[in-house]
Amino acid sequence: MSRPRRPGPSARVRVREFADDQLRVREDRLATEEPLEIRLSWPGHPAQRVAVTMRTPGHDFELAAGFLYGEGLIGPEAAIHTVAYCTDHALAPEEEFNVVTVELAGPPLKTPATRYAGPGGAASACGVCGKESIDDVLDSCRLQPRPAWEELRVAGPVLRGLPDRLREQQRVFDSTGGLHAAGLFEADGTPVVVREDIGRHNAVDKVVGARLLAQASPDLPLLCVSGRIGFEIVQKAVAAGVGVLAAVGAPSSLAVRLAGEAGLCTVGFLRPHRFVAYTGAERIAG
Amino acid sequence: MSRPRRPGPSARVRVREFADDQLRVREDRLATEEPLEIRLSWPGHPAQRVAVTMRTPGHDFELAAGFLYGEGLIGPEAAIHTVAYCTDHALAPEEEFNVVTVELAGPPLKTPATRYAGPGGAASACGVCGKESIDDVLDSCRLQPRPAWEELRVAGPVLRGLPDRLREQQRVFDSTGGLHAAGLFEADGTPVVVREDIGRHNAVDKVVGARLLAQASPDLPLLCVSGRIGFEIVQKAVAAGVGVLAAVGAPSSLAVRLAGEAGLCTVGFLRPHRFVAYTGAERIAG
Repeated sequence: MSRPRRPGPSARVRVREFADDQLRVREDRLATEEPLEIRLSWPGHPAQRVAVTMRTPGHDFELAAGFLYGEGLIGPEAAIHTVAYCTDHALAPEEEFNVVTVELAGPPLKTPATRYAGPGGAASACGVCGKESIDDVLDSCRLQPRPAWEELRVAGPVLRGLPDRLREQQRVFDSTGGLHAAGLFEADGTPVVVREDIGRHNAVDKVVGARLLAQASPDLPLLCVSGRIGFEIVQKAVAAGVGVLAAVGAPSSLAVRLAGEAGLCTVGFLRPHRFVAYTGAERIAG
Repeated sequence: MSRPRRPGPSARVRVREFADDQLRVREDRLATEEPLEIRLSWPGHPAQRVAVTMRTPGHDFELAAGFLYGEGLIGPEAAIHTVAYCTDHALAPEEEFNVVTVELAGPPLKTPATRYAGPGGAASACGVCGKESIDDVLDSCRLQPRPAWEELRVAGPVLRGLPDRLREQQRVFDSTGGLHAAGLFEADGTPVVVREDIGRHNAVDKVVGARLLAQASPDLPLLCVSGRIGFEIVQKAVAAGVGVLAAVGAPSSLAVRLAGEAGLCTVGFLRPHRFVAYTGAERIAG
């Protein structure tokens, strides 16, 4: 029996391109989309499922750690014992790389059973689904503003340059055209970590998780995302503790409301010569 | 006490625009994002929550009906008795328009309790979260190919023109830049129904639900979406019974795999002079 192949971030397919109605059969690369089940265990507690998310394979351990952080299950000093692909004998071989178990050295900050209870209690990484009610959805975002970043001032040209920095670090995007990117940056625009995923929330989880697994804090000055700012991106940015959330796309009404309540600076429509600040404009220099 | 205002599809905010580092304070419009809780009831069964999704208010009844259809809870001949905003006294006034109850005249095709069981059993409209396991996620897409559409042939110029048709029908997009659109079209490109939402899966649910509430079948020749094709869009397109799924963006690997298994024609990267067919290219004329 051959070992199952670990899925890559993109997959090759044969497509038919119709250009000016001339048919050309060629190869194309698509962003890989596969489900990832995230399980959590700690001493005395066998692994339990806390989420299933559709993601692009790659940096799965970071995705799992970042997701747990964003959900408030682990903190910045998380004692992660191991992160591993599941070797459950009940799993089909092709699913081996679609299940990640995070084993903590101690109990989580809160027990996932309260939020994800019940036999069908799979939550998602999108920050909404799996929550018990509307109140629960909104409560999860009413986080305390962080006291830091009061002195942070980011220059306009740095913000306007972020999409290019993000793109330079993207490796899969150019070949598929189908991935979102997220990146953590220093205040002068120096990239620290950039990750890609078919789900924009997953890309954010991956950059946060990359910091955690490197035993570093995710609360860097800048988080930039390639797409739009939905409320779940603000939720994750606030949980990570960043100073400015910048995006190529537009924010939603709820995203702006939550960012304002949490004291997060949000910037959208990043273009070479302009951008728009929705909240916390005092952190933009000049 | 004044009645709570029903939220609109966009909200006005004051923003600071930095153009070539000149600051201008102006008004902007953002796409509204609010949670919607979908409840289902039938004779002898009080309303139970089946999903919470973040959506753009507007066409909420269609969204609820389309979601239930896509999940296989109701069929094309669904005996929907009423669809109404919830008047639960336990709800805060501002949440009144964020809860919709669909009351059926008879039992649903399957009982939502089996999928959404448990005290925390909220499913999502994204087609993944809330499913019990990876198998469950994949099984939900292994739908039977529909026998129809064997004779369907769509002309290349019709496909290339769909994004413009979609845009012409969009009313909110131009003012916010933040919404996805989905539209059902006849084989000659005539638009039948177009809807918008901050979530692309919600936009698809809305066009399907619009047909159902008009007591018409959603199985039209063409479904076009403004963004990318994730697996959950294929799942909804197959459930709706359309012949061709077309998109401005790229499909994912899983989307193409599922479309192939279900016999759905998928077309992406729609541009004025070209497009790419991933599956079912025999349905493209010429």
